[in-house]
Amino acid sequence: MAAMSDYADLELRFAEIRDLSAASSLVGWDQEVMMPPGGADNRAHTLAALAGVLHERTTQRSLVGLVESLHKRRARLPRVQRRSVELARRTVLKATRIPAELARELALAESRGLETWRVARQKKDWKRFEPALQHMVELKRRVAKLGAGKGRLYDALLDDYEPGATIASVDPLLEELRALTVPLVRAVVKRGAKVDTSPLVGDFDVAGQREFSRQVVAAMGIDAARARLDLSTHPFCSGLSPGDVRMTSRFDPRDLRGGLFGAVHEAGHGLYEQGLSPQRARTPLGGAISMAIHESQSRLWENLVARSRPFWVYWLPRLRKTFPRLRRATVDGVWRAANVVRPSFIRVEADELTYNLHIILRYGIERDLVEGRLQVSELPERWNDGMAELLGIRPRHDAEGVLQDIHWAMGLFGYFPTYSLGNLYAAQFMEAARAQIRGLDARIARGDLLTLRTWLARNIHRHDQLWTAEQICRRVTGAPLSTEAFARYIHAKLAALYGI
Amino acid sequence: MAAMSDYADLELRFAEIRDLSAASSLVGWDQEVMMPPGGADNRAHTLAALAGVLHERTTQRSLVGLVESLHKRRARLPRVQRRSVELARRTVLKATRIPAELARELALAESRGLETWRVARQKKDWKRFEPALQHMVELKRRVAKLGAGKGRLYDALLDDYEPGATIASVDPLLEELRALTVPLVRAVVKRGAKVDTSPLVGDFDVAGQREFSRQVVAAMGIDAARARLDLSTHPFCSGLSPGDVRMTSRFDPRDLRGGLFGAVHEAGHGLYEQGLSPQRARTPLGGAISMAIHESQSRLWENLVARSRPFWVYWLPRLRKTFPRLRRATVDGVWRAANVVRPSFIRVEADELTYNLHIILRYGIERDLVEGRLQVSELPERWNDGMAELLGIRPRHDAEGVLQDIHWAMGLFGYFPTYSLGNLYAAQFMEAARAQIRGLDARIARGDLLTLRTWLARNIHRHDQLWTAEQICRRVTGAPLSTEAFARYIHAKLAALYGI
Repeated sequence: MAAMSDYADLELRFAEIRDLSAASSLVGWDQEVMMPPGGADNRAHTLAALAGVLHERTTQRSLVGLVESLHKRRARLPRVQRRSVELARRTVLKATRIPAELARELALAESRGLETWRVARQKKDWKRFEPALQHMVELKRRVAKLGAGKGRLYDALLDDYEPGATIASVDPLLEELRALTVPLVRAVVKRGAKVDTSPLVGDFDVAGQREFSRQVVAAMGIDAARARLDLSTHPFCSGLSPGDVRMTSRFDPRDLRGGLFGAVHEAGHGLYEQGLSPQRARTPLGGAISMAIHESQSRLWENLVARSRPFWVYWLPRLRKTFPRLRRATVDGVWRAANVVRPSFIRVEADELTYNLHIILRYGIERDLVEGRLQVSELPERWNDGMAELLGIRPRHDAEGVLQDIHWAMGLFGYFPTYSLGNLYAAQFMEAARAQIRGLDARIARGDLLTLRTWLARNIHRHDQLWTAEQICRRVTGAPLSTEAFARYIHAKLAALYGI
Repeated sequence: MAAMSDYADLELRFAEIRDLSAASSLVGWDQEVMMPPGGADNRAHTLAALAGVLHERTTQRSLVGLVESLHKRRARLPRVQRRSVELARRTVLKATRIPAELARELALAESRGLETWRVARQKKDWKRFEPALQHMVELKRRVAKLGAGKGRLYDALLDDYEPGATIASVDPLLEELRALTVPLVRAVVKRGAKVDTSPLVGDFDVAGQREFSRQVVAAMGIDAARARLDLSTHPFCSGLSPGDVRMTSRFDPRDLRGGLFGAVHEAGHGLYEQGLSPQRARTPLGGAISMAIHESQSRLWENLVARSRPFWVYWLPRLRKTFPRLRRATVDGVWRAANVVRPSFIRVEADELTYNLHIILRYGIERDLVEGRLQVSELPERWNDGMAELLGIRPRHDAEGVLQDIHWAMGLFGYFPTYSLGNLYAAQFMEAARAQIRGLDARIARGDLLTLRTWLARNIHRHDQLWTAEQICRRVTGAPLSTEAFARYIHAKLAALYGI
């Protein structure tokens, strides 16, 4: 009984931490989506102040004592509460390793880094960004050193986004993925098949694109009363609570693909956030399992659903209503145009085969940066060489090279590999869904996306953090994460598309 | 020297408080402007958590000690720092009177009250709102009792918005205003002059209205890089910092007046916020002097500028470009349509004469509620009787009566009188501006609004809180606040409009 009443106390303490985290997330969302440029300076201070308070709350001696004492008695707690204590302890220990001042400094550097990156990218000016990145790498190396113990520096950062993941666990998967992908990309390039992209490339009125995306996102089951859809230069999804999920997208008036698949991608994240339990949202159990599991949801919807042929059986006639110029487009034509495999510079616009090579490039770079084997000044060259080696192309300027992503500017080191892990999880989850849902493709071809949404919510979303990524993978698919499902999926798709 | 280094410490401590306040303001702004309905529940917790942290920071024993010690040595400080210490002490003492739990409870009740009010107003259902208001009145009475000392309960709340103001100082001004206004309203009604409102009433495409408002607001000198203009059901302005000022408006497709004058009103607030010193923004000196001074800026622009004849000399031709149906409208016709004096139900749509009677009604009600002479259950009747007595009309339902304003739902008791005080300040400031700026009306008629903006910024905005409201009034106008300038202004205007 004493353990249970201490546990209730822990939940109360955590509720405040979660509430303040929600404030911090909202302030960050606003900076990216709403804030006028003049607010940047004070915004950095605001985020730093919130980071300072959050750090203080999370490391309060009384909370650390409570968590440790509950952890010692965890055997007496029911399973759910035991897991909750473990999660709380993880959060508390991670925070206590970092001095308050460093937590504030990081928040300041993240917010300022974002603004510096924005300008540098727009001006294609690496030199403008370099000092900010240098500063950020130094800060993250300090964080890594404080967190790594006897482990590797990069592991300490990776674990922030993918609990339990290490270089030792990620390296083999990404190496298999590289070995699988590079020859396939070469084969596609060599075959030189020219895909007709005209069904999805050309003039597409942005208002029409937004409206069509809205229809698709609604069909996926996004509850509009618990969501916002906005525009931002770097699309993302931020879940303040299961009742307030914010997705952004960007639309290109000359190409339907980026906007639509981006919106579906973020809605995949959004469904996960909306599918989390509102009751547990303010407890240590609330929230997503890991970034790779999060990404599995977005990539599953973006690639395995919206880039599938059955999807277009239903949606092409609807797209024609918005854009009558598509009256002669065929399902096969649109499906092919949605799946052009081609080495390209921008990760977020890459096809699902080459995409993982973009990640493998970033993973190697950030790992070596954090571990001190690569200097910030060497970054553009390493990037461009890596692109040439992996994808056979070389960026013409840094905006289509090292400056393209927001992540490092915001201190997100250790985040990139979760994208490729997410792709692997997505393929493995989808195989399981296909085995368990009778006639899934036929349903998708009839416009029924809700059956899949419900399956994902029941099997993954609603469990919050009750299970680890590894556990949820085994529960849902019966096997640990591997490249096998993805390999089967991509081979079949390339065979159908390119005869490879 | 010790005092100065302690003072530097005080500024550091206050910077964090200001940063966290900015977070809280942003989270509140988002609730009103951006948040999807599903976020309401968690939002209340988030605001309560921030209120708790802010309260804790502001009442920290070390800060109280620092402030008191500096206050004792204030004679040794330069004038600016001395004033800063006084302002800091005021903030700290106000906070220490309220227990932390009450601060959190208030924030929770404010956020929830807002949501309850929204629904109740929409459904015209007073009973739905009554318990929330009852709860709020109880909380505010507790706050008032803790703050009043030997003074009157209502004074303690009034002072939150209008430092130094009391029933004793406000009553005579509002009584004079009532005595001045009621006969004038009766005279206008008796005269029964029918004003042709057709130049500003009819079909006005909302996109066109927004665009025209944007032009006016830009001409006033609002810097778009430091501002946002959004839509909300209850227009307001929130200054997160001089670099990030957020104004909202609402547009009626059948009436140009509400949207345009509302936008100009909020831009008046916005100019004040943008005119504050960025350097002092995070110190105790940063921010507006009082709500009445704030309101003087919005009302000056809304009524004394945008509802003046010279304004329309310049802007009517521009408005015609947006709305060609106005090609036959005259400056006099538009000016008259913009100044219809007529008793009406909704405060924010009231003309500048009857407006103050709306405030006098609310002031009497909230004063009596707080002082325990009026029960929440008696509110609708008291409201409707008051409307009949002051304005000669009786609301048909509570949405055009007691449910129309957001203020009480959000705990803003003591705020309403600042609107009428603002009207008085506006008239007095404008008389001074007219005396000091050669040919002000001719400038306005040429579209030059920046000369007035600069005069206001130089005389009022840029001083932050260096002076009290009373001091700034004397400095700018050479006299204490009175109803005289307003009386001169309104008599002249009514004479020109109605021959009264």
